[in-house]
Amino acid sequence: MIQTLLNHRSIRKYKSDPIPENILSEILQAAVRGSNTGNMQVYSIIVTRDAAIREQLWEQHFKQDMVKQAPVHLTFCADFNRFNKWCELRNAEPGYDNFLSFFTASVDAVIAAQNAALAAEAHGLGICYLGTVNYNTERIIEILNLPKGVVPVAVLSLGYSDEQNELTPRLPLEAVVHYEKYHDFSSEDIQKIYLETENSEFTKNLILENKTDNLAQIFTQKRYTKANNIHFSKHLLRVLENQGFMNHGE
Amino acid sequence: MIQTLLNHRSIRKYKSDPIPENILSEILQAAVRGSNTGNMQVYSIIVTRDAAIREQLWEQHFKQDMVKQAPVHLTFCADFNRFNKWCELRNAEPGYDNFLSFFTASVDAVIAAQNAALAAEAHGLGICYLGTVNYNTERIIEILNLPKGVVPVAVLSLGYSDEQNELTPRLPLEAVVHYEKYHDFSSEDIQKIYLETENSEFTKNLILENKTDNLAQIFTQKRYTKANNIHFSKHLLRVLENQGFMNHGE
Repeated sequence: MIQTLLNHRSIRKYKSDPIPENILSEILQAAVRGSNTGNMQVYSIIVTRDAAIREQLWEQHFKQDMVKQAPVHLTFCADFNRFNKWCELRNAEPGYDNFLSFFTASVDAVIAAQNAALAAEAHGLGICYLGTVNYNTERIIEILNLPKGVVPVAVLSLGYSDEQNELTPRLPLEAVVHYEKYHDFSSEDIQKIYLETENSEFTKNLILENKTDNLAQIFTQKRYTKANNIHFSKHLLRVLENQGFMNHGE
Repeated sequence: MIQTLLNHRSIRKYKSDPIPENILSEILQAAVRGSNTGNMQVYSIIVTRDAAIREQLWEQHFKQDMVKQAPVHLTFCADFNRFNKWCELRNAEPGYDNFLSFFTASVDAVIAAQNAALAAEAHGLGICYLGTVNYNTERIIEILNLPKGVVPVAVLSLGYSDEQNELTPRLPLEAVVHYEKYHDFSSEDIQKIYLETENSEFTKNLILENKTDNLAQIFTQKRYTKANNIHFSKHLLRVLENQGFMNHGE
């Protein structure tokens, strides 16, 4: 198990081989066994195998080929719709149309997603998260018929890998782990933490390709720009509003 | 591995035995191997073992005993502080003071948390998530010295279990899994989905204890009330504002 955790690689090329039903079922069972708030299970998992629907989703996921290639596309949603319907049938007034409810449901959806990812990897499958779920959320909601109270928050491509990937390098553990309390970073700390990453051949080639001065500028100028982040932040907050998660009274 | 996933129980009583360094180190390594957005690793993990700091945290986590009992308390944070400092050193203007950046960093922090949880369970340790992290976030930020750009989003208690728990029942898979697209629930569907849960002895005793008419009312009237949800939603949005994640221009 530890080896599966330590050997994770995101897979972006897939064979068309389907995933056997019993394996898919075990992946879904593993997903719902994850920890969740108050055992309310306020999340849902949309399993999309239909090629035509996956093609529609592919458009919204910035046309990343894996959405069409991988036989299974899993959309994990924060979901209070079912829970609210149950409360209403039981003469219990639901109070879950707010940001806290969305956020806790999102955390639970991601825990379920990561359990599914690991169960898949334990079965020799490849997985990849698609962050694009936060970019075209409105259209994805339409395509998957998500009702009010439901917001997609994590997406996995799932299938048999058609590529051999090296392990992606990570920053040294001291970049991420703090003991007892947070110890903020001096400029020297930052230099040290990023030294190996910045000096790698991989990074040097990336900088040449991107025509920037350094690696940090690839992130700020090309991949995750301020203008895009603001645009998609507004979009995501609008989605929360429209899906009924921003009612905080007066 | 599948067995570890399927046999998860949240543990709320712990022995005081410490976690060996090599096991803790492996848990942290497993955490950082999880998928993350653009390999930016915009999260951090605060490992708190000091009893005095854990006592302060215990107060904020609604005095749940496990915070004092469990030898290790892990706080997973959405963290753009380190990344922003690096960008600034490299003449790259960071644009990560917005809701999208917070949300994607939160998803990555939760993936890391769930990897840590599973690595711990693979080593025979018990874990429990503490949802209270979203309730007293402001005070937790003070106690752990979290700078601007850092928000705690998931907390784990970690240690050797001092209780024997049954597996918590889950709703049938069809309550959570939708094929191809979302299929909304009729009243009959809802009745069927909740039938077993509502008829269990456990639920019947819970209703007697809570003096409500039914299980749904325990959630809406006792555990997760509308008034509390609105109160903590405003608190959480204020935290995002104060920690610098709600700047969306004009």
